Amino acid sequence: MNDTLEAEPAVYFTEENSEEAVIARMRSDCDPRLRTVMSAAIRHLHAFVKEIEPTDAEWGATIEFLTRTGQISTDWRQEYILLSDILGVSMLVDAINNRKPSGATETTVLGPFHVADVPRLELGANLCLDGKGEPIFIEGRITSANGTPIAGALIDVWQCNDEGFYDVQQADVQPPMNLRGMFETDEDGNFWFRSVKPRYYPIPTDGPVGKLLQAMGRHPYRPAHVHFIVSAPGYRSVTTHLFVPDCPYLGSDAVFGVKESLIAQINMTEPSARSLAAGLDSAHWHLKYDFVLVPQE
Amino acid sequence: MNDTLEAEPAVYFTEENSEEAVIARMRSDCDPRLRTVMSAAIRHLHAFVKEIEPTDAEWGATIEFLTRTGQISTDWRQEYILLSDILGVSMLVDAINNRKPSGATETTVLGPFHVADVPRLELGANLCLDGKGEPIFIEGRITSANGTPIAGALIDVWQCNDEGFYDVQQADVQPPMNLRGMFETDEDGNFWFRSVKPRYYPIPTDGPVGKLLQAMGRHPYRPAHVHFIVSAPGYRSVTTHLFVPDCPYLGSDAVFGVKESLIAQINMTEPSARSLAAGLDSAHWHLKYDFVLVPQE
Repeated sequence: MNDTLEAEPAVYFTEENSEEAVIARMRSDCDPRLRTVMSAAIRHLHAFVKEIEPTDAEWGATIEFLTRTGQISTDWRQEYILLSDILGVSMLVDAINNRKPSGATETTVLGPFHVADVPRLELGANLCLDGKGEPIFIEGRITSANGTPIAGALIDVWQCNDEGFYDVQQADVQPPMNLRGMFETDEDGNFWFRSVKPRYYPIPTDGPVGKLLQAMGRHPYRPAHVHFIVSAPGYRSVTTHLFVPDCPYLGSDAVFGVKESLIAQINMTEPSARSLAAGLDSAHWHLKYDFVLVPQE
Repeated sequence: MNDTLEAEPAVYFTEENSEEAVIARMRSDCDPRLRTVMSAAIRHLHAFVKEIEPTDAEWGATIEFLTRTGQISTDWRQEYILLSDILGVSMLVDAINNRKPSGATETTVLGPFHVADVPRLELGANLCLDGKGEPIFIEGRITSANGTPIAGALIDVWQCNDEGFYDVQQADVQPPMNLRGMFETDEDGNFWFRSVKPRYYPIPTDGPVGKLLQAMGRHPYRPAHVHFIVSAPGYRSVTTHLFVPDCPYLGSDAVFGVKESLIAQINMTEPSARSLAAGLDSAHWHLKYDFVLVPQE
């Protein structure tokens, strides 16, 4: 029993006052940020329910969907992140947290396939350990917004293979750390390495989120891309992708990760001095992209 | 590959166009109701995220909360219904689906403790099988809105005991079907039976929803009540509670189930002819409540 509760005037819940009745129940001394977040959650959730007026059966199906989305998640599968991804919320949270001056390299979602402690490789090394796929030479420069090259910047790269699978998805087929590596820019801010052209691939479709996607008439594909995390002391890290321009899913990424500035130019070229030195002695794909970092706040 | 996808003009996701970019991705030929519901869900969800501007860590904690809420749910524990309950959404869905003419008995949530196939009892029977608690005599009449008594109406009753536990929560302590029963009204629409005064009780507090409730500075108690489902051929069934008026949590039900019209009058009275015939031979609690049903649509 709590004396302060007895003293509260009773405001009973009605369809009309529903948001206010629920929000008013929070104690004034609870964490201010939680109070702000939960007040907003309650207002938007009630507005949604009032707009769609679900039947009991529809609300029951919603409860069931939310429950199964939690239950199918494991240490290595996160179906709620997938739900956040396909509803554009992951990209929205990314956008909100990475507003930057014009000219800085734009961000996109991390995705579930990043691995920590990848091998540090020499510039020019080949990420592809099994020789499968069409060779591509990737190079560029890391600079600050005014064009100053950033020496010693780190470039963490990972991608799927020519069939659309990451090494961690095919531990029995691909060598460990296939198509992953960490490079450091030279004194002029340059980086260069060998890899293979990645393929588009589907997000998991065997769970509740895949079924929802199908019911909405949407395909599950992510357009072909290479992941990057670029970091340097004193600068804000950039987590992003570069997209292959000739992919049919570029305009309809299942997780909304594509930004126009992240669509790379890829050409078939003759070997350059650098790509030849890296072992590419005939025509190959070539991707050049410069990353622009902004100072840490 | 899909020709129609290639023909779509690319509209890339931005913070500004986020709702439209996601909604536009639904195919026009998907189920119209799903399209309406998902469009509303996307709009309200994005508006919520834009309002609170979560950090990456906050969004991660939200994903984690939603995941654990699914994972703690089992065949006998439904933490997402509990979440819906404490945010007032269950009562809102109940209100939306049970709009009724003034004068009809109001509804409230079913709750998780209803059991099917309870025993049919004679009028005057005692629901309390273990003799624990303060005796109460409950009686009333079932009528239509114009006062016509409804003979043969069914009254499905269940409640917790004097310590706040339902039989199904204490299978090792309470007899099966303790404080449950089904009655049928007599030719004048009357019902009457014996029971014991119920106690307030907490909703489960050991899961993510209980922790959220605590963080919001809210207590977990439901005020003392007796559950009823009243049904009769040709009439809409009413799922509701009657609340004990002297309970300290009446103004702050953790699931917002209280409506003013459902707070019963309870008095200590001398035995009446009926309560005496039911075996109550000294002063006892007395609750009288008439239910008003409306025709099925």
